Amino acid sequence: MKRMNSEERQLVGKISLSSESNHESHDEVTVMGWIHRIRKLKSVTFLILRDRSGLLQCILTPEQTEQHNLTLESVVQLQGRCVPSKNDYGQIELIARSVKILSQAMPELPIQINGASLEVQLDTQLEHRVLALRHPKEQAIFKIQAAIGDAFRSFLKEQDFTEIHTPKLVKEGAEGGSNVFKLDYFGETAYLAQSPQFYKQMMVIAGMERVFEVGSVFRAEAHSTSRHLNEYVSLDLEMGFIEHEDELMSLETELLKYIFQELSKNYKKELELLEAALPDVPSDIPKLKLEEAIVILKTQYGKTELEGDLDPEGEKLISNHIFKETGSDFLFLTHYPQRKRPMYTMPCGEEETHSFDLIFRGVEITTGGRRIHDYQTLVSAMQRKGLDPEMYRSYLEAFKYGAPPHGGLAIGLERLTALLLGFSNIRRTSLFPRDGQRLMP
Amino acid sequence: MKRMNSEERQLVGKISLSSESNHESHDEVTVMGWIHRIRKLKSVTFLILRDRSGLLQCILTPEQTEQHNLTLESVVQLQGRCVPSKNDYGQIELIARSVKILSQAMPELPIQINGASLEVQLDTQLEHRVLALRHPKEQAIFKIQAAIGDAFRSFLKEQDFTEIHTPKLVKEGAEGGSNVFKLDYFGETAYLAQSPQFYKQMMVIAGMERVFEVGSVFRAEAHSTSRHLNEYVSLDLEMGFIEHEDELMSLETELLKYIFQELSKNYKKELELLEAALPDVPSDIPKLKLEEAIVILKTQYGKTELEGDLDPEGEKLISNHIFKETGSDFLFLTHYPQRKRPMYTMPCGEEETHSFDLIFRGVEITTGGRRIHDYQTLVSAMQRKGLDPEMYRSYLEAFKYGAPPHGGLAIGLERLTALLLGFSNIRRTSLFPRDGQRLMP
Repeated sequence: MKRMNSEERQLVGKISLSSESNHESHDEVTVMGWIHRIRKLKSVTFLILRDRSGLLQCILTPEQTEQHNLTLESVVQLQGRCVPSKNDYGQIELIARSVKILSQAMPELPIQINGASLEVQLDTQLEHRVLALRHPKEQAIFKIQAAIGDAFRSFLKEQDFTEIHTPKLVKEGAEGGSNVFKLDYFGETAYLAQSPQFYKQMMVIAGMERVFEVGSVFRAEAHSTSRHLNEYVSLDLEMGFIEHEDELMSLETELLKYIFQELSKNYKKELELLEAALPDVPSDIPKLKLEEAIVILKTQYGKTELEGDLDPEGEKLISNHIFKETGSDFLFLTHYPQRKRPMYTMPCGEEETHSFDLIFRGVEITTGGRRIHDYQTLVSAMQRKGLDPEMYRSYLEAFKYGAPPHGGLAIGLERLTALLLGFSNIRRTSLFPRDGQRLMP
Repeated sequence: MKRMNSEERQLVGKISLSSESNHESHDEVTVMGWIHRIRKLKSVTFLILRDRSGLLQCILTPEQTEQHNLTLESVVQLQGRCVPSKNDYGQIELIARSVKILSQAMPELPIQINGASLEVQLDTQLEHRVLALRHPKEQAIFKIQAAIGDAFRSFLKEQDFTEIHTPKLVKEGAEGGSNVFKLDYFGETAYLAQSPQFYKQMMVIAGMERVFEVGSVFRAEAHSTSRHLNEYVSLDLEMGFIEHEDELMSLETELLKYIFQELSKNYKKELELLEAALPDVPSDIPKLKLEEAIVILKTQYGKTELEGDLDPEGEKLISNHIFKETGSDFLFLTHYPQRKRPMYTMPCGEEETHSFDLIFRGVEITTGGRRIHDYQTLVSAMQRKGLDPEMYRSYLEAFKYGAPPHGGLAIGLERLTALLLGFSNIRRTSLFPRDGQRLMP
């Protein structure tokens, strides 16, 4: 007997619509899925079955209904005939001949998932994440997230980048600062990588020239905000033989264009369901020196306390300002001061650096820039930051034997997804967010 | 001025070969790369430049040579004309007009990387990993590894699987056993995920039905072997609505076929360089019950101490046995006993399970099988293993509200790469291997 599932359902649907009268046996199908809705009338039961491909109306007799405990979200297997039907869920319906419960759901669901939206607090959703994710809107978020990661890789592969996997257990990976998780590694202290920064640079220097990584990174920041996670997926790239950070900004512009094109081509349904509007990526994303942005914020918005960096409110204001002036959802802020950037950042003049942030809809989604590639300059930069070069021995060794000029950037996958979909809380775009309160599920 | 790099070099090479006499200005190019070899003659210096695309012969005058400290592995920028030439490295050579050192390499290299192979111990290679990886053979390993990961994803996407990212910081992820890294997570004890097992199952149950993940996993095994790493990349998949583990074995067979086809199509050069022979994947990979394998090993090979599992020697012997009998590099061992499998494994009869290992060239590369999807059965299975269900509260919750029958498998990326390339030590296929002695670089 034919089993019907996903694409097959579409196929069987077509067969049943076109050839029902000729080949009745073709219409005998088996379908499996979750009970999404159920409506018991006197003479008939409407059971709406859900799987990853959508919903299907099934017709049961009162006897079939009584014989089973058909609770919402139970997984069932139905056998029967598909017949043409105009209903809310499609062009066919299944007349059940037999019903089998594969997994019985408890009668009381902690959250209702068959409404138009999940009408529960985010905390409750996250507590019952597996159930909450069954809602078609929640599924759509992670389809889109998977597509973003996929487009990131495809685009970079086309540009001859190589995918790498670098260690998350590190001794030297901590870039300084205290927001790092520590653990005992066979008697030594190890850290969880805050980023693949050192390792991606080392791979450029190791002759791969162009590398990217999609991997988990860890930040032990104790404060909880709506835009930070303690564990997230970083889309990292690093590129050798660049002459200016403009090349990185151009690359990111093309990359974002490509990602949104792919989404608009293949994920229309999901975007509509989430009422998300894809941004236009200008060929020339506006650029502002950080200092210029600070002056604008001070003179036009009365924001005076900024010093060498923007706070979240500053990012929002300058982003809106640029949107009003140019219509761009994106803004590159450039020339961050050395005192605010990590030691490996390439200096530009006495105070500034060859670095940038990308602001998208009011929030930073990328930090990038050129890196120091000269051994002595790097040692001096460490010393100026009060770091002991001996703590970075193996990273530094890479620069002793020929390191090309290079630079790179990183994009937080969850944050990009959240901003794209217009969510105010990044937890919505992490399957199992990790924050100060949450280590389960 | 045109910058030449990788594909561009090919292009410029062609222009220079075909149009040299007509458009002399086209031939003025800039190239950048590492000094791979250098041979100084009285009247001329041959400098062999290396970048990720290969090698290029460059001709310098004695004066140019003297003006610079042209140490091996220094990164240089050369400007000059490309002319046709028959040499060991290609069909063109560059007559340098100007030479600039971008990064000076120290004169003493800890390892020589311009020979036919790296003639140093693996330990020394790993100590100087960034330098060692510059050898074209080492580069080839990681090109192939990237391609394996990519093919894994492409194949599964075609089968309507969704990519997921699950947390590596977990509370419940430890499947039991002591080989788990612990850390302090804001006052709570967290573990590093040994696998995405629980989370990939939860995503199937959350309605995604078919999921995969390419991510880091962590095993705190103190013993060092040539086939284990303490951190590695796991290619994981999980699939709902299966009726038998045969479906998983068929899927893996097709998956492996696809991966090797992609390699054979696009990575001929790398495979030749590494003298690696791709295996044939039989459409029907031989299957043996574990108990049958143990009987064969006992009666035909005098191996008597095996009990419920194979040791590495047993895996090798039975793999060779099957290879001699059928010509297959692959072997599925099935029906592992319950006492040797994790609590979530679907039982088969009183003693056995619906599970399997895949042995490839004498080493296990996959463990897979059906999982228990019934809440009560799972609770009982935990109790039988002496585990407290309360420790798995959020994992268990997933099974309360309708869990489809499902199963999955995992492949270790480094191990698959090593076996494919015929390496006896898995450290060769990890960019920065983590073992009991190694947390740097």
